[in-house]
Amino acid sequence: MAVPSPFDVENLRARVQTVLDDVLAHQADVLEAVSPDLSPLAEAAADLMRGGKRLRPAFCYWGWRGAGGPADGPEGEAIVRAATGLELFQAAALIHDDVMDDSDTRRGMPAIHRRFAELHRGSAWLGPSEHFGVSAAVLLGDLCLAWSDELLTGSGLDESALARGRGVFDRMRTELMGGQYLDMLEQARAGQDGGAAERARRVIRFKSAKYTIEHPLLLGGALAGASQDLLDAYSAYGLPLGEAFQLRDDVLGVFGDPSQTGKPAGDDLREGKRTMLVAIAMQHSTSAQRASLRRHLGDPRLDAASVEELRRVIVETGALTEVERLIDTLVDQARAALASAPVQDPTRTVLEGLVDAATARQM
Amino acid sequence: MAVPSPFDVENLRARVQTVLDDVLAHQADVLEAVSPDLSPLAEAAADLMRGGKRLRPAFCYWGWRGAGGPADGPEGEAIVRAATGLELFQAAALIHDDVMDDSDTRRGMPAIHRRFAELHRGSAWLGPSEHFGVSAAVLLGDLCLAWSDELLTGSGLDESALARGRGVFDRMRTELMGGQYLDMLEQARAGQDGGAAERARRVIRFKSAKYTIEHPLLLGGALAGASQDLLDAYSAYGLPLGEAFQLRDDVLGVFGDPSQTGKPAGDDLREGKRTMLVAIAMQHSTSAQRASLRRHLGDPRLDAASVEELRRVIVETGALTEVERLIDTLVDQARAALASAPVQDPTRTVLEGLVDAATARQM
Repeated sequence: MAVPSPFDVENLRARVQTVLDDVLAHQADVLEAVSPDLSPLAEAAADLMRGGKRLRPAFCYWGWRGAGGPADGPEGEAIVRAATGLELFQAAALIHDDVMDDSDTRRGMPAIHRRFAELHRGSAWLGPSEHFGVSAAVLLGDLCLAWSDELLTGSGLDESALARGRGVFDRMRTELMGGQYLDMLEQARAGQDGGAAERARRVIRFKSAKYTIEHPLLLGGALAGASQDLLDAYSAYGLPLGEAFQLRDDVLGVFGDPSQTGKPAGDDLREGKRTMLVAIAMQHSTSAQRASLRRHLGDPRLDAASVEELRRVIVETGALTEVERLIDTLVDQARAALASAPVQDPTRTVLEGLVDAATARQM
Repeated sequence: MAVPSPFDVENLRARVQTVLDDVLAHQADVLEAVSPDLSPLAEAAADLMRGGKRLRPAFCYWGWRGAGGPADGPEGEAIVRAATGLELFQAAALIHDDVMDDSDTRRGMPAIHRRFAELHRGSAWLGPSEHFGVSAAVLLGDLCLAWSDELLTGSGLDESALARGRGVFDRMRTELMGGQYLDMLEQARAGQDGGAAERARRVIRFKSAKYTIEHPLLLGGALAGASQDLLDAYSAYGLPLGEAFQLRDDVLGVFGDPSQTGKPAGDDLREGKRTMLVAIAMQHSTSAQRASLRRHLGDPRLDAASVEELRRVIVETGALTEVERLIDTLVDQARAALASAPVQDPTRTVLEGLVDAATARQM
């Protein structure tokens, strides 16, 4: 018998989708009442949100379940709504991140700013299409950000639960945006001076690891009234796993199959992302290798041959091996933390499954 | 004896400033704990928030007071915190709006995206400075948006009050962002076809009027448990006053004194804003006047002579007179609604004073 995906246990993925459909239909109505001209915003949000593995809602939900929160009844409904708020938060982060990275694609579709630039161009409107696209993406990200806390606050969880969860939620937002700024800064400084690998790791922690795994787990736990011991165990499991998740994402951004990642091959290289992979490659490069990295990294017109050359440098400097080893170490830490964590089944089994799901070589 | 400013009654402006100082100091600490490199974000927010008349907190606070909410004690402290959340929300809207309009200045200082472009340029970082500036402004707007609801939710108001206020707050956010999109659309379509004045008025309503006056009043009222009668009276007063406020702002954007507006002379003309002033001027223009409007409107390098020419067209077509007349009508509506509204002093006197303060020819 096939093992069910850890995302589908307790029918979570389908329940998240139902909430998303409801929320987006409601918000489309609110926008429609302002003007029918706003329908492209609601449609773009719905299209974007059809994709995604629902990783953050899963960690939030299992953080709740692990702390004794019920799967069913009104509270079971309410936690799924609250957890789905994280999916909207992530959508906001992705939409704005794609503007900042000037990305072409997201989840195999045009990035939101490209989509609205296309709408502008196709409508023969005045002014630069790219600027219209960026502006619309800023607004749609703002909407998703607002809808995210609207969904959490209006989830139906009782007020004392919400008050417990609020601190994590607020910290998550401020730290993520701080992490995004650090990421930009690292790119602007082009990983200069020593310590680039260390700084890249701090970016990973705040820009991705915490908000993908640790904070969702802590949010779910806090909403259910978890003990401090359990919350500490969630952090001990979630933070290394989150770092491993992002490192895997970085590896896939360079070596991944476009049909799996939804992004063109080598897209992170084209965008010049200062990942740990790049920082370590820089650190261990010969002068010829370093020249190649400097020449090609962040070139928006990077061709297939140059992608191949950069990949070779990343392999030959040992950066790929080193990052894979770090992923293994972090995954081991997460597993060890889970082994001694005060959680029962089904949560234990699902959190074990999520280790693999979050760090798999195939996305 | 001098009449005190309606913004200063019950010492409101100073109390708002104290809350802002506290909140921004707290968020600066959260960011600093991520990395000292984040201090420019907190500093930019603090500088931006030093300006502003505190119009939205004032309407929120007096909406509360008019519904019987106390001025003092823990609840009095809490409502000032909640009301100050609107100031952060406005900061978010301004920061992102300036990106969309590509504005140079805000409150007499460089717009946030210009400020960070300058930081980038001065630091000799890599990549285009303008893009770095826009990215940082997107992030800082996101932070202010998140901090705004953090402040409302964590204001200290009790949970049933917050639950009552939440609907207004959520609708305000979605409608504002929808209004911003309509504004962009109107610019992209350059007020084409008939009905441009009507569409410009809808933009005013959703982009400005509601979130400046009606929604803050309704929020304050709902938080205090206002009757439906009182909420209806707030709308009957707040919506026309909000429209008058924005029309006055549009007039100042064309004819205002830079030392008062904090923006260069004729800046709205340079940005090509499709205000009612412009829509009406277009409608009533001779072909020569229309050609002049088409040629100069939205020209980023518009010089003083052309600003003067456009101003003349707006006066000669009768657009200025018509907009001034509309402002008068709307102000009369607001006053009439207030006259029959079930509110007592000191609220009544302050709301009367705010009519003038929100629509004064001098800002």
